[in-house]
Amino acid sequence: MFTGLSAFPLTPTTESGIDDRAYAGLVARLARAGVDSIGALGSTGGYAYLSREQRAQVARVAVDAADGTPVMVGIGALRTAQVLALAEDAQQAGASAVLLAPMTYQPLAEDEVFGLYEDVTRELSVPLCVYDNPGTTHVHFTDELHARIARLPQVASIKIPPVPADPAAARTRVATLRTQIPATVTIGVSGDWTAATGLNAGCDSWYSVVGGLFPDVALALTRAAQRGDTAEAVAASDRLEPLWQLFRQYGSLRVMSAAASHLGLTGEPNLPLPLHGLSPDARHGLITVLTTLGLAS
Amino acid sequence: MFTGLSAFPLTPTTESGIDDRAYAGLVARLARAGVDSIGALGSTGGYAYLSREQRAQVARVAVDAADGTPVMVGIGALRTAQVLALAEDAQQAGASAVLLAPMTYQPLAEDEVFGLYEDVTRELSVPLCVYDNPGTTHVHFTDELHARIARLPQVASIKIPPVPADPAAARTRVATLRTQIPATVTIGVSGDWTAATGLNAGCDSWYSVVGGLFPDVALALTRAAQRGDTAEAVAASDRLEPLWQLFRQYGSLRVMSAAASHLGLTGEPNLPLPLHGLSPDARHGLITVLTTLGLAS
Repeated sequence: MFTGLSAFPLTPTTESGIDDRAYAGLVARLARAGVDSIGALGSTGGYAYLSREQRAQVARVAVDAADGTPVMVGIGALRTAQVLALAEDAQQAGASAVLLAPMTYQPLAEDEVFGLYEDVTRELSVPLCVYDNPGTTHVHFTDELHARIARLPQVASIKIPPVPADPAAARTRVATLRTQIPATVTIGVSGDWTAATGLNAGCDSWYSVVGGLFPDVALALTRAAQRGDTAEAVAASDRLEPLWQLFRQYGSLRVMSAAASHLGLTGEPNLPLPLHGLSPDARHGLITVLTTLGLAS
Repeated sequence: MFTGLSAFPLTPTTESGIDDRAYAGLVARLARAGVDSIGALGSTGGYAYLSREQRAQVARVAVDAADGTPVMVGIGALRTAQVLALAEDAQQAGASAVLLAPMTYQPLAEDEVFGLYEDVTRELSVPLCVYDNPGTTHVHFTDELHARIARLPQVASIKIPPVPADPAAARTRVATLRTQIPATVTIGVSGDWTAATGLNAGCDSWYSVVGGLFPDVALALTRAAQRGDTAEAVAASDRLEPLWQLFRQYGSLRVMSAAASHLGLTGEPNLPLPLHGLSPDARHGLITVLTTLGLAS
């Protein structure tokens, strides 16, 4: 399940709770579209802002709505004890895998990050994907740290940050990491605007934000790269460049939040405070982009 | 209560819970020493790692053990709804003030940070101290943002990050911020190694980590600065330089954790996983420093 397109949907959230029905609808759309796996409660799924009870419920809804498509559930939290509890809940809910970012408040030393993964993998019975996301965790993984963690039991994939824009530099980045980790551990790219470059550079999967709402365009890009049609993968990404610009400017979460409500797939607002949605001007720009791309009418 | 020495004690925490008795002992020592206020559940108090129930209990123990010394309670959390609940709990526990850092997972825009303080101050009946701590929150306050927040009701103080080491640059920093905020809002320095420089540069208070375990040395430095004896304040800080070196190298939380257990004031370990204490080598160095400074035998 750690190859191809893994689609990360939003978890529609308001101050009064989670909209389970809208969430089930988002997940079912992804399964029907034929994504390879679903990443519930990733950063786009707002995992960091939800309670243990809410996260257990979201995991159950996701597994049910995915109807057989494998679901990976985010279990990150600031404290090891919380992560262990969330891992247990995710497995009980039927998750096929878990995704773990080392959230921080106090900056963590490398041994502390390693200790977290060691303590958690010891208790797991499903595979784990290491979530390397310096933009939210402020942990900067060295390749040495990746190598230590990738040798732990249950570690099956690494979700890496955006690869370099230059194709040769991207190939070097992926190849260098590959030499450090077991052959059984896959590498998946994130930062949607680098997905084509990352897949063409040898990444096994794309952990995709845009795929969580627009699975067809993400699948087209992924399948092109998988069949070796590097030019078509790049062309598919280039067509989405106006959307990537908005991702880089406002954060992909806020853009997908506005897109989901514009499509009528969630209510409005759908993000937990203190997060705000896009400003009216930015939202207007997004709608223009979506319409031009044929992603909204 | 937002002038002089505010002492921030550790919250002794293990995987099985909080050691209330040790915590009450730490707080009572500070009150007996005559600190001006106590900062419960600051970063040194590990607020980010504790549950709502644990934090309410810690606030009650602190107010009780402080025996009349004003207690400020940290109410930071990732989500506005959590912060509002924690503010209510802190006030119920008898806190004289609250301390709020804008914790982040998704990076926050300035309007989102402002919105958090706006939503929380609207509900408060005790004063609030703005906690500007980029090392843990990764929020970089501009002076314009400080000015907007400082005009909100209930805002009474700003806990600023380390001031520049150069005394003239520190005076400029404090004076510049002062021109942007109401005269009723005090400025307190943090980063213990810059406390003397900050107080001598016109800060009204010192939000102190070392003061949470060694109140006498922190009070001597603070009182020297308050009576205008800038040279003695600097000399008091210079004597502690070996300790400041360890703070900068390992983080003040880990150093105070090891010092507290070495003094027999807490058990061992006293930090929540994934945080580790000092390595044996670093601990040995700390004990040598404490002994040389007359802070441990």
